[in-house]
Amino acid sequence: MTTRAEILSVAAGRSLGPGPVALAVDVGGTGMKAVLFDEAGRLVEAITAPTPECADAAAGEVVDVVAEFGAEFGRTHPDHPIAEAAVVLPGIVEEATGTGVFSANLGWRNVPFARILTDRLGVATTVSHDVRAAGRAEFALAEEMPGNAAMVTIGTGIAAAIMVEGRLVSAGGFAGEVGFCEVAVDTADGLFRGPIEHIASAAAIARRYSARSGTAVAGSLDVLGAMHAGDEIAAEVFAEAVDALGAMCAQLVAVVAPEAIVFGGGLSSADELLDGVDEALRARLDFHRAPHIRRAELGPVAGLIGAGLLTRSTR
Amino acid sequence: MTTRAEILSVAAGRSLGPGPVALAVDVGGTGMKAVLFDEAGRLVEAITAPTPECADAAAGEVVDVVAEFGAEFGRTHPDHPIAEAAVVLPGIVEEATGTGVFSANLGWRNVPFARILTDRLGVATTVSHDVRAAGRAEFALAEEMPGNAAMVTIGTGIAAAIMVEGRLVSAGGFAGEVGFCEVAVDTADGLFRGPIEHIASAAAIARRYSARSGTAVAGSLDVLGAMHAGDEIAAEVFAEAVDALGAMCAQLVAVVAPEAIVFGGGLSSADELLDGVDEALRARLDFHRAPHIRRAELGPVAGLIGAGLLTRSTR
Repeated sequence: MTTRAEILSVAAGRSLGPGPVALAVDVGGTGMKAVLFDEAGRLVEAITAPTPECADAAAGEVVDVVAEFGAEFGRTHPDHPIAEAAVVLPGIVEEATGTGVFSANLGWRNVPFARILTDRLGVATTVSHDVRAAGRAEFALAEEMPGNAAMVTIGTGIAAAIMVEGRLVSAGGFAGEVGFCEVAVDTADGLFRGPIEHIASAAAIARRYSARSGTAVAGSLDVLGAMHAGDEIAAEVFAEAVDALGAMCAQLVAVVAPEAIVFGGGLSSADELLDGVDEALRARLDFHRAPHIRRAELGPVAGLIGAGLLTRSTR
Repeated sequence: MTTRAEILSVAAGRSLGPGPVALAVDVGGTGMKAVLFDEAGRLVEAITAPTPECADAAAGEVVDVVAEFGAEFGRTHPDHPIAEAAVVLPGIVEEATGTGVFSANLGWRNVPFARILTDRLGVATTVSHDVRAAGRAEFALAEEMPGNAAMVTIGTGIAAAIMVEGRLVSAGGFAGEVGFCEVAVDTADGLFRGPIEHIASAAAIARRYSARSGTAVAGSLDVLGAMHAGDEIAAEVFAEAVDALGAMCAQLVAVVAPEAIVFGGGLSSADELLDGVDEALRARLDFHRAPHIRRAELGPVAGLIGAGLLTRSTR
């Protein structure tokens, strides 16, 4: 899980621009992160906490943690009274109404988070989607970002933030669920055909390596490490994931034609991932524009910065 | 090819709404169609002509035919002097500059049609893409069309007009090239894996039926006819195309989550196509919203009406 020190380090020197003192919260599958931005849009402080188990579909425990984050910043930074808040969530999030429609991992259904948190925190609270918020931050802060772009986050699952002609696409919260894109790629085990999440997510890479090698690994970064140490099975599993990501990018190109595709998540630190996707994608393109494949810059704080930006603009 | 009588019949009773007297031209792979709209936005007359062979990448012959359409309406309808024009083209069309970037079938490259035609016709001329223009018309005139929708046209190739939150997506002319989406579907010949155009376009359906049955057919509607007459190979080829279209629709859903997918082109007249795609798509969806699969209403005049609408609005 991301630590307070990591958040402070990545965010150092960045600014959202002027606006209200803001609480930004990123609700993840295992951890929650909160930061306080001052009126200049600079990060003042960060807190993390484990994501609580939710007893039911109403996610009251998550609301409690967000409220506690707000209260703690109130105690520790009374000179920065929170005037606005933004919370980003996983799953299907309908931004227009601030509703957490559905989270497979955390179990909630149709929770009107924006309304509940606005009441609970006592300040206007905007709710958005974690991957779209991260995309918002990357698209806004990266240099030379074209108006048509996608940001693909590879984690336990795979999802994308899609920007079309300068606007993030939400479609009621259902856009960008690219982890679900079916791909067909050749593998050492024969043809793989199924949702890309089952071959190229961090979880799938670890699982496939463990199954094929007989060696248990904690996560996909261990597979990357093994590959760098010369492990052929690790290289094979990684190459198959990269090929599948190239196929998925070709689908993105066919539908919305982004000029840049930004990769986020731990695996995107590997040059092999970016170079391999570029090659696998170009091998599938014809008359199309090949998008620039690039690495996300904001790492684990992208969602928090994207949330912060929501307190600086009308979407 | 569409006849004048068909155009007049489909367009009867429809109106673009008030605006300038307008020339609308649809440049197809084999035929060109032109209509004259009056100030009330009603269709006055239609003309068709074969699409000329182009000697080079400048497409001067196509420009000549458009100019001749304008001149003929000038002679036959001197009471309706053309005040504005819109021309829709196949291939890659960049609307912002009115450029025909690329047409595989007609051979042009980077032709500044809007500028050339504005000079030649002596009235402001807008240039757009045939499939996006058809989508514009279907989206604008059909009842209860959601803001997130796609229109898939099945012809010699397959392409889509994509509407995101009420706006057509162009991405420099490269969006919606869904014929290129790779799909993997089981067929009687084993696994098909490749661009959907190679299995589900009208041309592919005819070609695959001819190859598998040993009986030459003129086109995909003959395959549909054979299927209705109980031909099992025709039913098989058609079912494989429909399954592939369902896979492609699942990709559209994963990326932009349309709430409606409208099918155009001759094959969309078959209930089996719409029902089959709906079934094949739903079999692939999980937590997603299943889009409503519907039939285009404007048939072969959708592109002309979409062109006409461009003279009624600022895009």
